[in-house]
Amino acid sequence: MADRVVLAYSGGLDTSVCIGWIAEQTGAEVIAVAVDVGQGGEDLEVIRQRALDCGAVEAEVADASEEFAADFCMPAIAANALYMDRYPLVSALSRPLIVKHLVAAAKKHGATTVGHGCTGKGNDQVRFEVGTAALAPEMKVVAPVRDMAMTRDKAIAFAEAKGLPIDVNKKSPYSIDQNVWGRAVETGYLEDIWNAPGEDVYSYTQDPSVPREADELVITFEAGVPVAFDGRRVTPLQAIQELNTRAGAQGVGRLDMVEDRLVGIKSREVYEAPGAIALITAHQELENVTVERDLARFKRQVDQRWGELVYDGLWFSPLKNALDTFLAEANAPVSGDVRLKMHAGRAWVTGRRSEGSLYSFDLATYDEGDTFDQSLAKGFVELWGLPSRIASARDQRLAGGAQ
Amino acid sequence: MADRVVLAYSGGLDTSVCIGWIAEQTGAEVIAVAVDVGQGGEDLEVIRQRALDCGAVEAEVADASEEFAADFCMPAIAANALYMDRYPLVSALSRPLIVKHLVAAAKKHGATTVGHGCTGKGNDQVRFEVGTAALAPEMKVVAPVRDMAMTRDKAIAFAEAKGLPIDVNKKSPYSIDQNVWGRAVETGYLEDIWNAPGEDVYSYTQDPSVPREADELVITFEAGVPVAFDGRRVTPLQAIQELNTRAGAQGVGRLDMVEDRLVGIKSREVYEAPGAIALITAHQELENVTVERDLARFKRQVDQRWGELVYDGLWFSPLKNALDTFLAEANAPVSGDVRLKMHAGRAWVTGRRSEGSLYSFDLATYDEGDTFDQSLAKGFVELWGLPSRIASARDQRLAGGAQ
Amino acid sequence: MADRVVLAYSGGLDTSVCIGWIAEQTGAEVIAVAVDVGQGGEDLEVIRQRALDCGAVEAEVADASEEFAADFCMPAIAANALYMDRYPLVSALSRPLIVKHLVAAAKKHGATTVGHGCTGKGNDQVRFEVGTAALAPEMKVVAPVRDMAMTRDKAIAFAEAKGLPIDVNKKSPYSIDQNVWGRAVETGYLEDIWNAPGEDVYSYTQDPSVPREADELVITFEAGVPVAFDGRRVTPLQAIQELNTRAGAQGVGRLDMVEDRLVGIKSREVYEAPGAIALITAHQELENVTVERDLARFKRQVDQRWGELVYDGLWFSPLKNALDTFLAEANAPVSGDVRLKMHAGRAWVTGRRSEGSLYSFDLATYDEGDTFDQSLAKGFVELWGLPSRIASARDQRLAGGAQ
Amino acid sequence: MADRVVLAYSGGLDTSVCIGWIAEQTGAEVIAVAVDVGQGGEDLEVIRQRALDCGAVEAEVADASEEFAADFCMPAIAANALYMDRYPLVSALSRPLIVKHLVAAAKKHGATTVGHGCTGKGNDQVRFEVGTAALAPEMKVVAPVRDMAMTRDKAIAFAEAKGLPIDVNKKSPYSIDQNVWGRAVETGYLEDIWNAPGEDVYSYTQDPSVPREADELVITFEAGVPVAFDGRRVTPLQAIQELNTRAGAQGVGRLDMVEDRLVGIKSREVYEAPGAIALITAHQELENVTVERDLARFKRQVDQRWGELVYDGLWFSPLKNALDTFLAEANAPVSGDVRLKMHAGRAWVTGRRSEGSLYSFDLATYDEGDTFDQSLAKGFVELWGLPSRIASARDQRLAGGAQ
Repeated sequence: MADRVVLAYSGGLDTSVCIGWIAEQTGAEVIAVAVDVGQGGEDLEVIRQRALDCGAVEAEVADASEEFAADFCMPAIAANALYMDRYPLVSALSRPLIVKHLVAAAKKHGATTVGHGCTGKGNDQVRFEVGTAALAPEMKVVAPVRDMAMTRDKAIAFAEAKGLPIDVNKKSPYSIDQNVWGRAVETGYLEDIWNAPGEDVYSYTQDPSVPREADELVITFEAGVPVAFDGRRVTPLQAIQELNTRAGAQGVGRLDMVEDRLVGIKSREVYEAPGAIALITAHQELENVTVERDLARFKRQVDQRWGELVYDGLWFSPLKNALDTFLAEANAPVSGDVRLKMHAGRAWVTGRRSEGSLYSFDLATYDEGDTFDQSLAKGFVELWGLPSRIASARDQRLAGGAQ
Repeated sequence: MADRVVLAYSGGLDTSVCIGWIAEQTGAEVIAVAVDVGQGGEDLEVIRQRALDCGAVEAEVADASEEFAADFCMPAIAANALYMDRYPLVSALSRPLIVKHLVAAAKKHGATTVGHGCTGKGNDQVRFEVGTAALAPEMKVVAPVRDMAMTRDKAIAFAEAKGLPIDVNKKSPYSIDQNVWGRAVETGYLEDIWNAPGEDVYSYTQDPSVPREADELVITFEAGVPVAFDGRRVTPLQAIQELNTRAGAQGVGRLDMVEDRLVGIKSREVYEAPGAIALITAHQELENVTVERDLARFKRQVDQRWGELVYDGLWFSPLKNALDTFLAEANAPVSGDVRLKMHAGRAWVTGRRSEGSLYSFDLATYDEGDTFDQSLAKGFVELWGLPSRIASARDQRLAGGAQ
Repeated sequence: MADRVVLAYSGGLDTSVCIGWIAEQTGAEVIAVAVDVGQGGEDLEVIRQRALDCGAVEAEVADASEEFAADFCMPAIAANALYMDRYPLVSALSRPLIVKHLVAAAKKHGATTVGHGCTGKGNDQVRFEVGTAALAPEMKVVAPVRDMAMTRDKAIAFAEAKGLPIDVNKKSPYSIDQNVWGRAVETGYLEDIWNAPGEDVYSYTQDPSVPREADELVITFEAGVPVAFDGRRVTPLQAIQELNTRAGAQGVGRLDMVEDRLVGIKSREVYEAPGAIALITAHQELENVTVERDLARFKRQVDQRWGELVYDGLWFSPLKNALDTFLAEANAPVSGDVRLKMHAGRAWVTGRRSEGSLYSFDLATYDEGDTFDQSLAKGFVELWGLPSRIASARDQRLAGGAQ
Repeated sequence: MADRVVLAYSGGLDTSVCIGWIAEQTGAEVIAVAVDVGQGGEDLEVIRQRALDCGAVEAEVADASEEFAADFCMPAIAANALYMDRYPLVSALSRPLIVKHLVAAAKKHGATTVGHGCTGKGNDQVRFEVGTAALAPEMKVVAPVRDMAMTRDKAIAFAEAKGLPIDVNKKSPYSIDQNVWGRAVETGYLEDIWNAPGEDVYSYTQDPSVPREADELVITFEAGVPVAFDGRRVTPLQAIQELNTRAGAQGVGRLDMVEDRLVGIKSREVYEAPGAIALITAHQELENVTVERDLARFKRQVDQRWGELVYDGLWFSPLKNALDTFLAEANAPVSGDVRLKMHAGRAWVTGRRSEGSLYSFDLATYDEGDTFDQSLAKGFVELWGLPSRIASARDQRLAGGAQ
């Protein structure tokens, strides 16, 4: 029996050509797998048929949107995951899910190899291959664009020569990746980092500078997960989708940044992630109310490291797993309501309430009813500053200074 | 000779009463020191005279705005200082500067004690006392509001009984602290954390929801310090002031959060810091362009710790000093231009350029001219994922799973 | 009914006097609770009777050695807990366990207050009171030595006046605290930090300089917990006790250090913890074999923070709880055997083997059978160094250097 | 003119063959550079002549021992550099120094390429190549063993065929690297990690189990650098050499561990580093006396990261540079004397004294003269535990528990 390769299939030019390219170069049978992570666009069945038309011996499609929202986006909320304090890990989150489906298909179809259409200068090759290595350590990987000289020009020529059912002329000036958690845009004139992005790069968000009415809702969280809007239960997927629409209509979630890629270079990226930014903003403030100070301080380091790991393709790694247990414990008390307002590109919290609140009016108030015993503060302040006092006295003594 | 106390004097009711209160309770002579950190309001000379009228044996006033901007706010930019990822340390930055002037006055006037009017449940007592302990380890501290039962009602009664030149009826519903770096508002109806702040709490910023034209400027940084706007040189103080005006006109820099105080409680704070937020936003993105990845990742931890230390009253501490050397080295290459746009409550970067840029079009581009050798990536990815692969193979072996 | 106070009772002078002192000063009934954490010494029943003879209305004793070993010492092994890279947290670990028993007794006997005999300059007061606050937020605390002027001289006078059954002349030149996890010695001539400790300060360990035969054993761990010695099953308590004897006979586990106390001062401490040091040494090396690199690197930070929290009295804190979940996950694969040798004050590992080993002879060997594909390294090294290369090229360009 | 390659030359079989191998494969002229980092062994002039005899067009030798000690080992002391809490970075420290000399020679001789004899599965290839990339971003690298199929068998055949002046039969069963900072041994029967190392693997240290007299000395540090032994001034190199002899005679500094290599595998390493371990042990304890607590706690993270960076080949990286500024500032007060005792494999501190000590007898003592105001502690403890208390009350409230 011929070797079998399971290919991550998008339906676009590159991966359509990959089917035949891999078959020609390696003699393997190619099985195409397309995973819907809420990217919109073509019907899955259309994509499946195209894969077969392009020469795949099998083609599978999976609507994994609910799974993506629940198992990948919700943990990102728990970690307030913003790589470089900005980027909500749009593509980085979807890759491990796709890998999971690829590996499952490979086992089902007896394939020994997983294939992807990524180039050699981006992060996604890392996420595909390291994810595969973690889920199926014995699995091999093939990457025609990177390792088999499949340039874009050659891909077009191949598609035309073979009569593949692909419109080779349809090409965005940008390289785009999108899913329900957000949308990433790069290349084109954005590669000059002094150029400002124009409105044409955006699709999930409206122009925030156009005057419109503000929008507002109360988001209920349970253990860090958004579960209701204005009292109406929502699934994780619904929560993201509805906020993509509503926050997107307010222009929330546009990002423009220079980013540190894992492969060692900086790149310029434009993102829009209205639902992600709205949900993380609300979650952060509910944490401020319900998470104890020392835990919150340490959690910021964990959040940062979690984001770096996921960005760096290490979703299925031992450290990521261990950080997840920490994050689950830290989020246990993050339940309650946050009132979120959205307008003109911003989402911000205007109120919060929680059965598990650590805010105490009686301790905080300067009005009557104050239960905080201020006399204790004198001793606290004195001992808190004692190490600084002793060190300073030492420095002054050595400098021949005071006294 | 009587003991002498140098009192941090604001000109308001509490510290005006403190002058006589301290004198009565301790027999000491009180020297009032008022420091202008750009808070606006009354003329310094008026304040000086009021201190004398209230019984101070000496009264000194100092315009320290330039010093505050240069020596306290600029380092905060270098550290992207946002406590809890939000608060730009408005009050926390001014206290050590005021302490510095108090201690200098104490030495000049032969005082043994420093006094302040802070309560026992806030952070400022810590900043005053720990700062004093660090600068003058032998100096004593007196805090009448906290330690001598000087409640507000007693202060009013004292002022009336002594005929102090203070309007005891003038009272904001809020507790406010402000300086050129920003403005903090608390108490009143904000103590119910479900209540949204109204427009009445704001003073440095316009309502961002009112339609207006966007504003834009090019900020030039040298080694992390903003030095020019659209090519026009500015001092640190001018930079902050101009952006307070311009970003403030766009409603930039409003913050509403529940915050972890050092004394162990959570409090609700509303801030507005238009200049601070605009400058930190611009600085962060210039760092993205000019600071190497591993340094940038570690610097985020240093930034966080720096903010915690300053918030916690440890400006003059050995750890803060050591972090400052790290931050100075990290900021050495942070020179160049950032184009900042401000509108409707948001400030964001639309372009960046720098002689010291680490972004390379030739390495990053997907167009012709690409100099990145993609063939290297295969080996990189393989070894990058090797620890995960080995760990997973182990786990599967132990689980009796896949080969 | 009179108020009731539950007092942490050791049977010594200070806490024996505390019983009557608290009763006299507050009118409360005192219930004495003594907890055996493997400190050796007097019979628990003798201690119980003494408490009653000193005026306690109730006296309870509990042998908590097994609980201490299993629930407090084993987690310390999981965290390789060495405060300041040295001190295995001997006293710090026992306090939360004692607090747990005090609070349980308080609830059983309807007490509103917990009492302890600690001074105001040590760490133990913090551990008692913060632990109590965490387990029983409404409980009050009384500390006669610190807050009621119960000096040693007054305590002796009180004991003599009341005829308490205490030998007031029996006094060690040192202040000692000990339990099954180790022994802490301070004060006396050790307060001069230039003085070397003499043999008289040690009790758990033999002089390591005396020639003797080395000892060796194979320790089996399961998920980070030592479960067998040379194939013979041991409980956590037995593991510690046996190694206290055997490692102690070899002089293992003596420590002499200047330490940072939570209350802001440095103190000089001498410890001996033969079992603890032996077990942590073995555990660390088994981690080296079974824990993946990135997880191991991050775990070192978690280990450090865990040690600081426990030292600082925060055993029952939200951050400690969250770190525990991380440590449990990280220790899941830490199973296998370690051959430990002990001699002349040292314990070291000479061999390790594990079903869950991540060490692979086939990957590591330079002999035949090598399965590591060296050709991958070139690309890895190139991309690994790319950020440094780009940054250096920038620096040289700006300096007008190379090229 | 032919291309020129500067080769890191050791005088052994592999690099001797590399000279001709590179010349044959690339047509380049090879310049051999040998750097003495205190490894002992053959005379430098003998090595130089051998390089010429093997075909090098130029051969340079440099005694860089003093430079190595001063500029590479002293910073390692400042960072208490112990990778994985154990390994003092013996080889990792010498590589950047060798690279520095290689690059200088390359510039002097007009070479475009640097060569080394490392394999593709170790750390040293990374240190050579990343170091070169950082010091000379345009320089190329050639690695015959890894990239040109120069196996050991082929090397021997080549040496015999060409009549190179090398004894091809002389082969240690181990792979050894050594310099003044220590000695690393791997391979052979040590690749079975259950095997204990025998005495034959050691060279710098005597068997610690042989009874002998203890040794003791007082080490004086200035700003973290050892400058005198028992009052006699020593250079950095002398300090290391003398302690290699004296601590080595006591068997101090033997290490046996499984280590995480940068290339993603675990390897078994045996080290001996008597001088390094003795000096770091002394330095750590002097830090305990002279460095303020919060700084010391953060410094442990910096120390760890510094060690990882140097291990990972990033000596000349922006983050390493920034950490160095932190370490220099932290070490500024680390001056004073440490009494170090060495015996039977152990080095430990028995006394410390310093003008810059932060230990205060008056604050620490329990005897008369105590100046610590214990009454302050009550307030400190209360506020220190307040966040835990509030969080616990919340948890109990939600659990329907106490109160």
